[in-house]
Amino acid sequence: MRAATGKPLLDTVLGFRQPRPPIWIMRQAGRYLPEYRATRAGTTDFLQLCYTPALATEVTLQPLRRFALDAAILFSDILVIPDALGQRVRFETGEGPVLEPLDVAGIARLARLDPGTVLRHLQPVLETVANVRAAIAPTQTLIGFCGSPWTVATYMLGGKGSADQAAARLFALNEPVAFAQLIDVLIDASIAYLVAQLRAGADVVQLFESWALNLDEPAFRERVIAPNRRIVEGVRAQIPEAAIIGFPRGAAGMLAAYASETGVNLLGLDYATPTGFAATALPPDLGVQGNLDPLRLVAGGAQMAERARDIIAAFADRPHVFNLGHGIVPQTPIEHVAALVDIVKNG
Amino acid sequence: MRAATGKPLLDTVLGFRQPRPPIWIMRQAGRYLPEYRATRAGTTDFLQLCYTPALATEVTLQPLRRFALDAAILFSDILVIPDALGQRVRFETGEGPVLEPLDVAGIARLARLDPGTVLRHLQPVLETVANVRAAIAPTQTLIGFCGSPWTVATYMLGGKGSADQAAARLFALNEPVAFAQLIDVLIDASIAYLVAQLRAGADVVQLFESWALNLDEPAFRERVIAPNRRIVEGVRAQIPEAAIIGFPRGAAGMLAAYASETGVNLLGLDYATPTGFAATALPPDLGVQGNLDPLRLVAGGAQMAERARDIIAAFADRPHVFNLGHGIVPQTPIEHVAALVDIVKNG
Repeated sequence: MRAATGKPLLDTVLGFRQPRPPIWIMRQAGRYLPEYRATRAGTTDFLQLCYTPALATEVTLQPLRRFALDAAILFSDILVIPDALGQRVRFETGEGPVLEPLDVAGIARLARLDPGTVLRHLQPVLETVANVRAAIAPTQTLIGFCGSPWTVATYMLGGKGSADQAAARLFALNEPVAFAQLIDVLIDASIAYLVAQLRAGADVVQLFESWALNLDEPAFRERVIAPNRRIVEGVRAQIPEAAIIGFPRGAAGMLAAYASETGVNLLGLDYATPTGFAATALPPDLGVQGNLDPLRLVAGGAQMAERARDIIAAFADRPHVFNLGHGIVPQTPIEHVAALVDIVKNG
Repeated sequence: MRAATGKPLLDTVLGFRQPRPPIWIMRQAGRYLPEYRATRAGTTDFLQLCYTPALATEVTLQPLRRFALDAAILFSDILVIPDALGQRVRFETGEGPVLEPLDVAGIARLARLDPGTVLRHLQPVLETVANVRAAIAPTQTLIGFCGSPWTVATYMLGGKGSADQAAARLFALNEPVAFAQLIDVLIDASIAYLVAQLRAGADVVQLFESWALNLDEPAFRERVIAPNRRIVEGVRAQIPEAAIIGFPRGAAGMLAAYASETGVNLLGLDYATPTGFAATALPPDLGVQGNLDPLRLVAGGAQMAERARDIIAAFADRPHVFNLGHGIVPQTPIEHVAALVDIVKNG
């Protein structure tokens, strides 16, 4: 086991339980902050914000100026990988990302790309990582991330977000060879990207498997567990002590298999995961992250405080990073965030 | 325990394991059938189809003419309850249902309604139940249903379907008194409606809790388990041996609690529920229904056959009703349905 570093959040990921859980908030640099909206209003395009180190650094740091958070998370998007691979990604206002869906021929083209392409394209993001690392306190943790291959593939194959990922799920069944080729491309790109983030100054990286929820068991094993494991192994082949959080949103009955078979250090729990279920299904020493419903943070007050305290109590005997169970939503009142951080820090 | 009836599907719900699992298919009377599309094309409105006994009977019977299914399921919709309560429901083509979202005052108005209103409005649906019962074979089971209160409330409060049910989830947190009042109205209406279906000739009723997936544990207990239990108890207070299937889609880590605390006879499993998880988490004698991914039925072929056989093998030692883990989708080839029924019937 790697030695403790003095960064409470990184140390928790490494397996060292803290007196109080450290906290960060998924999508903490986001639209609920007026200063974020002001910075975003000055850019023409969401990806431009991700690819401009001065601006991306600024929005990454904004929530740390307001709240006593234990980590910064790189401001970027899971779709910078398809963008770096040459699949055009647009962000339409109120509509989310839009891509031209890949077909079999398009996947074959991706597979022939020079492997250096992705990192050259993502150089500005790596510069942001270095900037943020230089700006935050030595006790604060910097979290890098990427989307997991299945989640990214759902956008590349479906062309947009969807409630059931039907386009990608059907493609995987109808075109298994091309689908496997796409997953291979994404695994290689993700490993290179995460290793570069860790070398640029990230302390921890998180794998966002945001669409783990509509897969049956064989599909989950093939599309989620195997690729996430290959990324963990690929990163650790280059950085043996890399600290990795896995967040398979909706994994539910496959959560324990994901945790034990991928080799992640810490397991992110969505808000629908009952704390008692996690306590019985997971190895007792496995650290967890989560899992307050973001809408409880919107509503605030006694119900939020009570639920936050219940979550902290439920995970008191294992490494625990406090977080929401999904991203913070734009209508969240800032004073509720301040109240939550205070509860987590001070009880 | 109630005695066996000679209807294989009803008997399975009652706890009698069959040599081969009986089968029905969620949304089996639906758009994948050309004869359904033809009937639907002759109506101006989806609810008109539900409220016209001759037409609703016809579409209920259509899939039984093509496939050796063990059950008919009443052709209707979970939103006939809000419609019967006076909240206008329109079905927009390609958009799904649209309702004027309820507010606190609207809920108070619903709570003052004469309890007989719902059954008077739904008389044509009960006539369809009687028609179908008279038309099917004595060994075939007739399944009635309603939407569970939380699921129906998400539409009544949100005005439409959504991926995260955020409007209803926030309403429940911000207006707990009015929310509880709405759930009470829906529980009473559902009990009356299900009892009437059973008296009109339904052998089994299913509670569709289609949106059980975005709730944390306290919310799941309050909004799913408690109302479903109250409906089961309310129906059994009038019909002690009522056979009830509960289908909490996305219940995941709360599945075992739902099964043991609601008192349903048989538990519907969505396709994301791993068979091994169900086998270890559920009481060994509890019957289950499910759980093939509907997209495996679209893709067909060897992967579908293999997965169907794996599901049958996994549940061979408990009562098992074969079904999809969610509704059949319009693009499903009819010959794949025939192949699936053959596999389930003949191995």
